[in-house]
Amino acid sequence: MLVRPSRVTWVISVLSGGVGAARLLRALQRHRPDVELSAVVNVADDVTMHGLTICPDLDTITYTVAGLNNAEAGWGLAGETWRVMEELERLGGLTWFRLGDRDLATHLYRTQRLGDGATKSEVARELAARHGLRIELLPVSDDPVATVLETEVGRLSFQEYFVAHRHDVVVREVLYEGAPDARLGLGAERALRDAERVVIAPSNPILSVGPILAIGPVRDVLAERRDDVVAVSPIINGAALKGPADRLLGEMGLPVSVLGVAQYYAGLIGTLVIDEADAHLAESVRDLGINCVVSTTVLANEDNARRLCEVLVP
Amino acid sequence: MLVRPSRVTWVISVLSGGVGAARLLRALQRHRPDVELSAVVNVADDVTMHGLTICPDLDTITYTVAGLNNAEAGWGLAGETWRVMEELERLGGLTWFRLGDRDLATHLYRTQRLGDGATKSEVARELAARHGLRIELLPVSDDPVATVLETEVGRLSFQEYFVAHRHDVVVREVLYEGAPDARLGLGAERALRDAERVVIAPSNPILSVGPILAIGPVRDVLAERRDDVVAVSPIINGAALKGPADRLLGEMGLPVSVLGVAQYYAGLIGTLVIDEADAHLAESVRDLGINCVVSTTVLANEDNARRLCEVLVP
Repeated sequence: MLVRPSRVTWVISVLSGGVGAARLLRALQRHRPDVELSAVVNVADDVTMHGLTICPDLDTITYTVAGLNNAEAGWGLAGETWRVMEELERLGGLTWFRLGDRDLATHLYRTQRLGDGATKSEVARELAARHGLRIELLPVSDDPVATVLETEVGRLSFQEYFVAHRHDVVVREVLYEGAPDARLGLGAERALRDAERVVIAPSNPILSVGPILAIGPVRDVLAERRDDVVAVSPIINGAALKGPADRLLGEMGLPVSVLGVAQYYAGLIGTLVIDEADAHLAESVRDLGINCVVSTTVLANEDNARRLCEVLVP
Repeated sequence: MLVRPSRVTWVISVLSGGVGAARLLRALQRHRPDVELSAVVNVADDVTMHGLTICPDLDTITYTVAGLNNAEAGWGLAGETWRVMEELERLGGLTWFRLGDRDLATHLYRTQRLGDGATKSEVARELAARHGLRIELLPVSDDPVATVLETEVGRLSFQEYFVAHRHDVVVREVLYEGAPDARLGLGAERALRDAERVVIAPSNPILSVGPILAIGPVRDVLAERRDDVVAVSPIINGAALKGPADRLLGEMGLPVSVLGVAQYYAGLIGTLVIDEADAHLAESVRDLGINCVVSTTVLANEDNARRLCEVLVP
């Protein structure tokens, strides 16, 4: 039962990876103040490094929505300093996974709180509140889940693949370890069931959304209400704006186009939003039994952002 | 069996806490290049904070002997910056235990290596090498040991007592948890058996040396060769130069003077070095069956440092 404050006209939950989702969430928060927003966030990229628990997708969203992110780099904080890493480099420590000084404070905070017995969900809520977010940040699960990739150079953890190898190796298989047994977070389950609309962000389908879909009942929840589920394609004109989403679709045997995205989400979504550049593929999407809306999916400027928000929240 | 390079005339091992020991080790390294030095270091103040393993005594020694320490503060590094702590404060994290940015790199390095399966001894050796130390740094044990204090405000961990309460509460009992079952580190055992002389640094007897003495066979090893064991009194004219050594002697029912130190180490040391200010107590020390040498124990300047080094290494 939704009890909605008067100024809220929509309740929306966004399945979220990192950068792509963060930009969409920021746009929705900015252009649709009438929307009550939650983000159900991937945790399968989370990693323990130097004893610290790092949640890249949760942090990217927090920093981006708070306007603190380094937009150029696509990760980390603007105006970041690197004292700790510089010294760690001198000591001969592991520095391929760069952690800025302010960013490190987030990881120290989280790791201390988890050590005290708090859940990832509680920590995410605390950090979101500290940064003044009006979005409810919901880790999809508080249980450990890890994306692991079987590649041409052997089995790699997500961060080894993505950061150390710059996602430049052939992937044979993607595994979501722990996902089948992981419980959906309490907040995440409520959000997915109660939101009027579930949006799948233009995140990497296989690396960012896949591990969310692999958690316990998520597929079933979406399939049951697929008419309310809208995905935004992260593929434009056969390519990903950023990252290896295009390449991975191909490596998983799917078309490297919005059709691959549509096939990957088939049965789970009622609507796919594709970019104008792909308008000629709209009919082929519809042939898969998925409603297809042509709009802009590049949040390069505020006009585009507003247009996409209007499509997602009519 | 000692195999001694030709320029080495003495092999000495120093039972070490933090600041007092660090200054003595630095003086010995500087003024007695003919001495092959090892430090058997207290680990009972070690603490896990934000998921990071912090070894304050090992780090104080490393930083001080390398000449990187903040001499004014008595802890941490000179010219340190505090980006991480400033941000952690903004996030509402735990900041009563201050960790500078460069210092944090040490803890990240150690925690990562321990996570990889390295021992504290291995990490101490690596860090000492990185900083160019000519002293062998030997954690007294690789097993967990923790000093715990029963106080007027309840049971406190060492760092809660020392940092959070600024050692300003009445202590009823000092416990060295884990010490009876802890194994002496391999390097530490060899050093204590093979060194020609074992020096007990002018560290806090109860808080810094006590937990070393409580480890497995340390008392027996020292008692067997007590004629080779020389302690330097951390108490001068009834007071500690720094920290609560004086107060704690009293709280443990011992005289608050070099006599308290002598009683605490009775049976384990052949010689106690006391300051000129306490020359009148030398006979009373000797009455306890301990040889007593009057010298300077304040390493305030290089002259004093040289004099004390000559007493310790004739």
